[in-house]
Amino acid sequence: MLEDTVVLAAVTVLAVLEQAYFSLQVIYARRKYSVSPPATSGPPEFDRIFRAQANCSEYFPIFITLLWTSGVFLSQALSSLCGLLYLYGRFLYFRGYSQSSLGRLAPLYFSARVLWTLIALSCLGVVLSFFRVHLNVDVLHELGSA
Amino acid sequence: MLEDTVVLAAVTVLAVLEQAYFSLQVIYARRKYSVSPPATSGPPEFDRIFRAQANCSEYFPIFITLLWTSGVFLSQALSSLCGLLYLYGRFLYFRGYSQSSLGRLAPLYFSARVLWTLIALSCLGVVLSFFRVHLNVDVLHELGSA
Amino acid sequence: MLEDTVVLAAVTVLAVLEQAYFSLQVIYARRKYSVSPPATSGPPEFDRIFRAQANCSEYFPIFITLLWTSGVFLSQALSSLCGLLYLYGRFLYFRGYSQSSLGRLAPLYFSARVLWTLIALSCLGVVLSFFRVHLNVDVLHELGSA
Ligand SMILES: N[C@@H](CCC(=O)N[C@@H](CS)C(=O)NCC(=O)O)C(=O)O
Ligand SMILES: N[C@@H](CCC(=O)N[C@@H](CS)C(=O)NCC(=O)O)C(=O)O
Ligand SMILES: N[C@@H](CCC(=O)N[C@@H](CS)C(=O)NCC(=O)O)C(=O)O
Repeated sequence: MLEDTVVLAAVTVLAVLEQAYFSLQVIYARRKYSVSPPATSGPPEFDRIFRAQANCSEYFPIFITLLWTSGVFLSQALSSLCGLLYLYGRFLYFRGYSQSSLGRLAPLYFSARVLWTLIALSCLGVVLSFFRVHLNVDVLHELGSA
Repeated sequence: MLEDTVVLAAVTVLAVLEQAYFSLQVIYARRKYSVSPPATSGPPEFDRIFRAQANCSEYFPIFITLLWTSGVFLSQALSSLCGLLYLYGRFLYFRGYSQSSLGRLAPLYFSARVLWTLIALSCLGVVLSFFRVHLNVDVLHELGSA
Repeated sequence: MLEDTVVLAAVTVLAVLEQAYFSLQVIYARRKYSVSPPATSGPPEFDRIFRAQANCSEYFPIFITLLWTSGVFLSQALSSLCGLLYLYGRFLYFRGYSQSSLGRLAPLYFSARVLWTLIALSCLGVVLSFFRVHLNVDVLHELGSA
């Protein structure tokens, strides 16, 4: 069991570190632009950093959920690879959004495409597992021998 | 292991698709009401859609956590059934809230009740598993033979 | 498998109950200070309670992720202990932040330190598991016999 998930766990820890980095950037921005909690808005520079972190936080649980679903039910390798791409995309999103609202768009589309890929892998994994365990049919094997 | 969780995984993917749908609605509403990021408020119609998605996102990790805890430690079937009800409730919540603030209330109470049920199932699952693995007592079996 | 995770599951359910408590406090505060959805700000007292819950919600998925990663890949006991400390820290954070912005700081530092500990435990667990399953080296055992 562990060997099938240790790489997923490594990507997961990386994802947490990225979120920690984003949070620290918000804390620095709060100091720099004097936006003390509970306030959540200030100059546009602050607002963009604040929203960049909020948006990444909103998608974090969705990402982790998909990473593990596709990783456990389909392929650890494929899922981890998509995971790394997603984290890279989110890093670009954060940096781009911090600079300008427009700057968030290209990396956003990229991250969204990776997420849709993870959704597709998860669906495939669930369907194949369902066939295997409930109908006792190994679809990939059947296809291979057809 | 996989056979005991594949239905949970299917409900999980459905939950992610629902969140994707909510996010897309916010993106369309941003265009329709010209509320460009990083702004998060505009006309009341936009605000309600924005908050509906934010509220669903806030509860998404709680829901996934409970779905899997009760599904793994108690019953995949019961947990998945509650999961589907919850997702349906959240769909009604989103639609209701988009239309009026009051419209969110009935589906909110419904979703909350389903979440409390999942909490109860999770507690029961944890307690029964604890008895079984640490005290070597199968409570359900003891009850049955009493 | 179950015996290695039932305590993690118990801490998880406790974490969900804590989040439910925070949400209820926001609902009471909405009534008390007449801040009807979709509004998210009102008098400073309300804003602090609202943000305290939002901040705890933002970190909830990160916490659950780390709890399970370090618990499964390193040690259920250590991880659960940190989990309880974190939940206690978050309770103090919520109470402190509700009273004054400054009141959130001490418990925030405490919770952050616990989270960093969970990150360290997770990293260690991932690295040790990686050595064990991919390189077939049991590092702890090697160290013990050195
Ligand atoms: N909470 C998001 C949900 C939809 C979303 O992910 N939108 C993308 C494309 S408009 C985004 O970058 N939003 C910026 C933001 O969340 O501040 C929003 O408010 O926009
Ligand atoms: N973040 C929520 C926490 C509590 C909650 O879930 N409230 C329910 C009942 S008042 C709700 O529908 N909130 C509307 C919203 O979050 O916009 C809030 O601000 O109200
Ligand atoms: N979303 C957080 C991210 C960073 C964070 O966790 N900040 C700490 C220290 S300034 C906090 O207590 N924030 C208060 C809040 O989120 O309302 C923020 O806006 O500040």
